[in-house]
Amino acid sequence: MEPTVTRVACVQLAPVLGDLAGNIERARAAVRAAVADGARIVVLPELATSGYLFATADEARAAAVAAGDPRLAAWADDAARGEALVIAGFCELGEDGRLYNSAIALDGSGTRAVYRKTHLWDREKEFFTPGRADPPVIATPYGRVGILICYDLEFPEMPRSLALRGADLVAVPTNWPVVPRPDGEHPPEVVAAMAAARASRVFVACCDRSGTERGERWTRGTALIDTDGWIRASTRDEGGRATADLRLGDARGKRLTELADVLADRRPELYGPLTDR
Amino acid sequence: MEPTVTRVACVQLAPVLGDLAGNIERARAAVRAAVADGARIVVLPELATSGYLFATADEARAAAVAAGDPRLAAWADDAARGEALVIAGFCELGEDGRLYNSAIALDGSGTRAVYRKTHLWDREKEFFTPGRADPPVIATPYGRVGILICYDLEFPEMPRSLALRGADLVAVPTNWPVVPRPDGEHPPEVVAAMAAARASRVFVACCDRSGTERGERWTRGTALIDTDGWIRASTRDEGGRATADLRLGDARGKRLTELADVLADRRPELYGPLTDR
Repeated sequence: MEPTVTRVACVQLAPVLGDLAGNIERARAAVRAAVADGARIVVLPELATSGYLFATADEARAAAVAAGDPRLAAWADDAARGEALVIAGFCELGEDGRLYNSAIALDGSGTRAVYRKTHLWDREKEFFTPGRADPPVIATPYGRVGILICYDLEFPEMPRSLALRGADLVAVPTNWPVVPRPDGEHPPEVVAAMAAARASRVFVACCDRSGTERGERWTRGTALIDTDGWIRASTRDEGGRATADLRLGDARGKRLTELADVLADRRPELYGPLTDR
Repeated sequence: MEPTVTRVACVQLAPVLGDLAGNIERARAAVRAAVADGARIVVLPELATSGYLFATADEARAAAVAAGDPRLAAWADDAARGEALVIAGFCELGEDGRLYNSAIALDGSGTRAVYRKTHLWDREKEFFTPGRADPPVIATPYGRVGILICYDLEFPEMPRSLALRGADLVAVPTNWPVVPRPDGEHPPEVVAAMAAARASRVFVACCDRSGTERGERWTRGTALIDTDGWIRASTRDEGGRATADLRLGDARGKRLTELADVLADRRPELYGPLTDR
């Protein structure tokens, strides 16, 4: 793990519903540009290849690709140019014929991990099968990167579990529809991300989308959050890129004071209600 | 449970270090005033009877009282006048001779619960014994009230566990020392409280303290937070009272949409790392 800073970028793409080829190409261009700018970890939105607001399962299926599709693997070529890790959401056609709301992580060596969203939001339940496996924690030269997708992050159990499993940074491809909020407040999902970062002293990189899709507007809440829970970079722009140079090694220190440690001070014997079924 | 609104008040007292009699009397006056104003749930700060920054264990011991001390029970008389529940932090002398950083809950019937802080912050570990029991969830005519104390709230497992155990409102006596934060941001502990409220759709009532003690300043972050995670009342004033009329029944609805439910959508089979020891 390098002791210095790592440039992390989130590109707030505006996928076009159903335009698989175009979305993949625009994502590829975004990865190339971020890597050229020095980013070593690049995060793209949830369902970046397909768009989000499917009307029917058939529509989702028409925009789905297998995780091994060479068009996704092409992103690895761009990642390889800068020794970067790319994390992007895509609509996955599983080998079992089912659809998953997934994220793929690639670097110059190819596919590092595929994660299938475990907490499906609202009508996603009509189109997607929920993942059954824990989210991955990927070792890189820059630190360990965990992955969640959108609504996953709103279950405090999830970022906490990743931190306990050693993640230094949690990458979160998202699609956040606009919801009302009081003046001066961050989007509520960003508040959740800030709290999750501080609670476990991990970095969180949320990559939201932009564009308008079937009348839905998106929060454009992309945010890179440090281990104190503060936003280090964000963008409200259509297609905007948020970039921050982060000392990911800071996530290895869990102490708040000489005698307070956010993980060592846990009392897991009291947390039984969280895993009761 | 009443279907209507319940007035909840937090009184941001400024305890005087070691002035047990004076602190108890000021707390009593605060309870009386809040109840006269119509509050049915009244929250006071952590260690409201003793102050916080003890130099030695002996100093803490000199300011400790037993949970059954008639001076605390007197608060119940004031609670009884308005059929209120009072929750206050105090420095407890246990029947085992040990000191605990505790909270007591009283209503007209007397003591409803005593909770001993389970996550001790920093030098508290030198003075106090950590509690071994789960925080209480107290049934009242207004809803079910859970209790945490200060640093407890920063462990997302804790408010989540209380929500799973049925709490509608989490009352949190705190002492939050000032820490740096970016312009325009809430205190980080308030961000944690907002996220906890929204994650489980519970109300959170944090009662911070005020005053200056041995040079330490306090955040004065008292905040009443609704089930969407937004602040409904706060006060930055010395000794200030924050009051909100809350529909506590809202906490019984955990749905965000017809198909999304913040508790039913949990995947406890994935949360094993949280309870591994």
